[in-house]
Amino acid sequence: MSKPFVAIVMGSDSDLPVMEASFAVLRAFGIPFEARITSAHRTPDMTKEYIKDAEQRGCAVFIAAAGMAAHLAGAVSAATVKPVIGVPMNASLDGLDALLSTVQMPAGIPVATVAVGKAGAKNAAYLAAQILSVADETLAEKLREERAANAKEIGRKNQALQDSLKA
Amino acid sequence: MSKPFVAIVMGSDSDLPVMEASFAVLRAFGIPFEARITSAHRTPDMTKEYIKDAEQRGCAVFIAAAGMAAHLAGAVSAATVKPVIGVPMNASLDGLDALLSTVQMPAGIPVATVAVGKAGAKNAAYLAAQILSVADETLAEKLREERAANAKEIGRKNQALQDSLKA
Amino acid sequence: MSKPFVAIVMGSDSDLPVMEASFAVLRAFGIPFEARITSAHRTPDMTKEYIKDAEQRGCAVFIAAAGMAAHLAGAVSAATVKPVIGVPMNASLDGLDALLSTVQMPAGIPVATVAVGKAGAKNAAYLAAQILSVADETLAEKLREERAANAKEIGRKNQALQDSLKA
Amino acid sequence: MSKPFVAIVMGSDSDLPVMEASFAVLRAFGIPFEARITSAHRTPDMTKEYIKDAEQRGCAVFIAAAGMAAHLAGAVSAATVKPVIGVPMNASLDGLDALLSTVQMPAGIPVATVAVGKAGAKNAAYLAAQILSVADETLAEKLREERAANAKEIGRKNQALQDSLKA
Amino acid sequence: MSKPFVAIVMGSDSDLPVMEASFAVLRAFGIPFEARITSAHRTPDMTKEYIKDAEQRGCAVFIAAAGMAAHLAGAVSAATVKPVIGVPMNASLDGLDALLSTVQMPAGIPVATVAVGKAGAKNAAYLAAQILSVADETLAEKLREERAANAKEIGRKNQALQDSLKA
Amino acid sequence: MSKPFVAIVMGSDSDLPVMEASFAVLRAFGIPFEARITSAHRTPDMTKEYIKDAEQRGCAVFIAAAGMAAHLAGAVSAATVKPVIGVPMNASLDGLDALLSTVQMPAGIPVATVAVGKAGAKNAAYLAAQILSVADETLAEKLREERAANAKEIGRKNQALQDSLKA
Amino acid sequence: MSKPFVAIVMGSDSDLPVMEASFAVLRAFGIPFEARITSAHRTPDMTKEYIKDAEQRGCAVFIAAAGMAAHLAGAVSAATVKPVIGVPMNASLDGLDALLSTVQMPAGIPVATVAVGKAGAKNAAYLAAQILSVADETLAEKLREERAANAKEIGRKNQALQDSLKA
Amino acid sequence: MSKPFVAIVMGSDSDLPVMEASFAVLRAFGIPFEARITSAHRTPDMTKEYIKDAEQRGCAVFIAAAGMAAHLAGAVSAATVKPVIGVPMNASLDGLDALLSTVQMPAGIPVATVAVGKAGAKNAAYLAAQILSVADETLAEKLREERAANAKEIGRKNQALQDSLKA
Repeated sequence: MSKPFVAIVMGSDSDLPVMEASFAVLRAFGIPFEARITSAHRTPDMTKEYIKDAEQRGCAVFIAAAGMAAHLAGAVSAATVKPVIGVPMNASLDGLDALLSTVQMPAGIPVATVAVGKAGAKNAAYLAAQILSVADETLAEKLREERAANAKEIGRKNQALQDSLKA
Repeated sequence: MSKPFVAIVMGSDSDLPVMEASFAVLRAFGIPFEARITSAHRTPDMTKEYIKDAEQRGCAVFIAAAGMAAHLAGAVSAATVKPVIGVPMNASLDGLDALLSTVQMPAGIPVATVAVGKAGAKNAAYLAAQILSVADETLAEKLREERAANAKEIGRKNQALQDSLKA
Repeated sequence: MSKPFVAIVMGSDSDLPVMEASFAVLRAFGIPFEARITSAHRTPDMTKEYIKDAEQRGCAVFIAAAGMAAHLAGAVSAATVKPVIGVPMNASLDGLDALLSTVQMPAGIPVATVAVGKAGAKNAAYLAAQILSVADETLAEKLREERAANAKEIGRKNQALQDSLKA
Repeated sequence: MSKPFVAIVMGSDSDLPVMEASFAVLRAFGIPFEARITSAHRTPDMTKEYIKDAEQRGCAVFIAAAGMAAHLAGAVSAATVKPVIGVPMNASLDGLDALLSTVQMPAGIPVATVAVGKAGAKNAAYLAAQILSVADETLAEKLREERAANAKEIGRKNQALQDSLKA
Repeated sequence: MSKPFVAIVMGSDSDLPVMEASFAVLRAFGIPFEARITSAHRTPDMTKEYIKDAEQRGCAVFIAAAGMAAHLAGAVSAATVKPVIGVPMNASLDGLDALLSTVQMPAGIPVATVAVGKAGAKNAAYLAAQILSVADETLAEKLREERAANAKEIGRKNQALQDSLKA
Repeated sequence: MSKPFVAIVMGSDSDLPVMEASFAVLRAFGIPFEARITSAHRTPDMTKEYIKDAEQRGCAVFIAAAGMAAHLAGAVSAATVKPVIGVPMNASLDGLDALLSTVQMPAGIPVATVAVGKAGAKNAAYLAAQILSVADETLAEKLREERAANAKEIGRKNQALQDSLKA
Repeated sequence: MSKPFVAIVMGSDSDLPVMEASFAVLRAFGIPFEARITSAHRTPDMTKEYIKDAEQRGCAVFIAAAGMAAHLAGAVSAATVKPVIGVPMNASLDGLDALLSTVQMPAGIPVATVAVGKAGAKNAAYLAAQILSVADETLAEKLREERAANAKEIGRKNQALQDSLKA
Repeated sequence: MSKPFVAIVMGSDSDLPVMEASFAVLRAFGIPFEARITSAHRTPDMTKEYIKDAEQRGCAVFIAAAGMAAHLAGAVSAATVKPVIGVPMNASLDGLDALLSTVQMPAGIPVATVAVGKAGAKNAAYLAAQILSVADETLAEKLREERAANAKEIGRKNQALQDSLKA
């Protein structure tokens, strides 16, 4: 059986510079992924067909990014029972509209929502990796190593601060 | 040709007590309407099929009511080029989540959004009547008469206040 | 009978750069329109007279744009039974003040509210076109064609993304 | 010349129980007042005529109370150069919509906005009294006496607390 | 008796560029005014003494501008029974903190609150002029003339738009 | 190997009535779960030890529910690389404080956030089931069946509405 | 030297039922305290005199509770260099107005702000105890014991949950 | 016994430019301090160990700065009974997320929250100085002198305004 992959959909090509942060994290963990620009409202059929097709081809986790009245993640969740991660984009109102449109889903059709903007784009990829790691101990170990490396990086930044305070 | 009608969809039967205010206004203007409970997320195909079918049978205006991450009006708008009126329900956060999820639609797929809750339910019906009246002068005249009656009603309430202030 | 037209009013000339997005969409659909700068508060009589006059000359839909305590759309709606579309401008508080001032209209005097700012300016024109298309099948067909073109454009953007991911 | 009076307008009879707090304060200061139910949207002409008439009959200060997209105070301000005090009613969204619709007026047409709900209803009357007292030293003295009495009342409440803490 | 004047206090010299909009409006109406930088928190005694002194020297209306937890207008209102106009500055949170800190005053100590930032700074001066005009018909007439001129200005801007649409 | 289970932690026993909605959904899917009351702030060590222990005993997904400054989900996420689902409780400010405290996590430590309150409690369980179903096709099938049943239920409610409209 | 005490001021007797939660915590720690009802706006001189007098008599920490445009804590902070703890009351707008009015103090005059309402009332007392414990190791030890007891209480509640889950 | 010191922790080196405002105020008062970059989520153990160690070495007050879902101050408060001051950083949503995540702490684990951003960074240091001054009259005197100097500075700024108004 081929390796499960992550499918990233975004509502507009203006979301791409933010969502490249997801690509980078997935690449760092060696997780295969696809990315599509497709809109919940302007290309609803294309969106649905892609979700169904990706699921059949082995997609295990979806990531959906959208701004304003951000319906894309919910539309994806309605079309699959795979876990769907929603990334609210900051296109207006500091992203509060996209956050509420993504997270306040009715019972039965959940969206796993992460932070607004770039931090959320990164965390969507981490969360996808965590979900895949439930059945993949090698990936779980990579996640633990990355956390340790991250902690060391903070240690280095702290050391730089100590040096500057002594100077 | 048969008379154009209004189709009202709502995401949950819990929206019904609020949306009956729409029914009452449409009945007062003698405008035929249908109402369906159908969900953007839980029954997306049923929603879309109903919209397509209603449009073919002569629906001229859609009204969609939903709460929380209220995607129903947007999903209806994506499936038709008829005007779609969105009514945000107050199911959480004072209805602010539903308002933003309904009104902040991306360019090309508009939702004509009205106020949160019962005032919005009434205004959705008035707005539908106004849209139909563009090509129906008899209905336009009814709308003008209703406004005059409404103004008189305020006059009566004001008179009651004057009487109580003199008492 | 002459063709029905759209009348656009805005509260200030500072709204003009945003509202030109409405002009562009209406022109693309070949819908005749007028535009006026007139204020609900500073020129209330001029506003009302223009609305009455435009209605008599065949205006079928009004679009009103205003920021801050955005009363213009409501004032227009009070002066006509034609459908009135409100565009909240982002002049302060991320446009939240204008959004609430436009959408939360009391029962009987609806304003069909669209998104804050430029997306809303575009959607006001699409919504006006949809309203006119209720009695104009040619226009309805144009709206459907524009959606198909829009979907193709998303397809092109998606293809560019696929190309860049392979590169 | 007859004594200047205060004119109170409210958009709905549902505002009356809150606005009676204004009546009580004005009565306590012996300030003559009128009150009218009239709507910015449903009876715009009646509103404007009343404002013009009240101004000619000696009205010196207007108080306007409204909820939701609260345009009444702004509409009154547009029709007079007398000071206009706005009281946002809590009819939805904790009154935040009415507050922003009342206070965020554009340059040239100010509304002197007070707090949401009953505290605002009282303060509208105090503010009206303060405005009248600019040219009426007897009223200014009454305002000072009322403050002193108010301070004493707080002293009494504090004494009750001291007694309960000792008990 | 000398002419009544307006006293403007602001909490910080960073508010000065915004509040100069008040100066300009008062100068245009020929209304004498003073301006002081004084803080509710950092110079509470100086603030209070200035208010008392200004009142005795004939100040008829106070304008207070402050940002963040904007207490200055409330502190001024606590020290006088003259009308106090509050201008919320946008120093953080889009000025929402300053707006709520200024407008939500408890019963008995009102602050006549105007819009956040420069529009509010202008309107504070207009409102002060309106308050003074209650006992000064010459000033009332100037206010009416200024409104007419303002309306003409909008007419000119509208004409420019008509010209550009024809071009 | 024993079946993976879900561990639910909540910050207070006052969250229990809401979180029982999670229990019910998990039971309906036959997913084993544990539940603990443990606080990020009052019992941080107990929280961390439980997370570590649960992970070693085969916990595959964590659900954390908390209100106000809701740090529990973040604290759990910091202690494990398993997916962590956060449920914001409505204990104050309509749950907006808990929502922002849960969802706005910094890069590297994601929390899969769902809706505020009971809808979120249900969706946390659905999301946990979806995550487990990535490696469990039987569970995926149950999720699909539950969706179909859910859609039928909406159909029944819609039928009741049709019957009442005909009556 | 006599023991340092805590002085609690509140703007209204309506705050008393909430602030009794502060009294209870201080009593549990054996910390002497005074409480006064005094208003920043209605009794500014009484407030200032009390603060000065309490400071001279050995008050080490102030707690100030107020709602709406909550200026009391800021006014206290302006009158002393002792630490001042602010408790925002929920009198309107879910307490958001009081929170922002209390916490957003300008540089130089801090208010140590705690949560809105009863949780904040309790935490104001804990924080006061923590401040006093900086120079009082016996009190610090009591605080540690109270935390341990609190953790045990959570353990008991967790045990009750475990029992109910087994039943 | 050595002099008590202040320990400042921040979640990221991006907070450093803002928090240097705390350093400057502490240096001006001659208060010894340490600063560490350490994260509630990425280095929870390092954070806790540092807090425990700092407390044993004589730390009397902690300052914690973090943005987004700002848990750092709460995590520090959970690890010590010394007073903990929280500074919300403006990393997203105007800092509202960080403010609510910092201030809305549950009963028993208080965080003394100050304003968002640089004003808060300064006030955290002032508040720490005030807390230390409870047992250090020399420091209390310095705080009083600094306030007097601050008031003089406002006087100088006011004088500059008076000069410019006369010019």
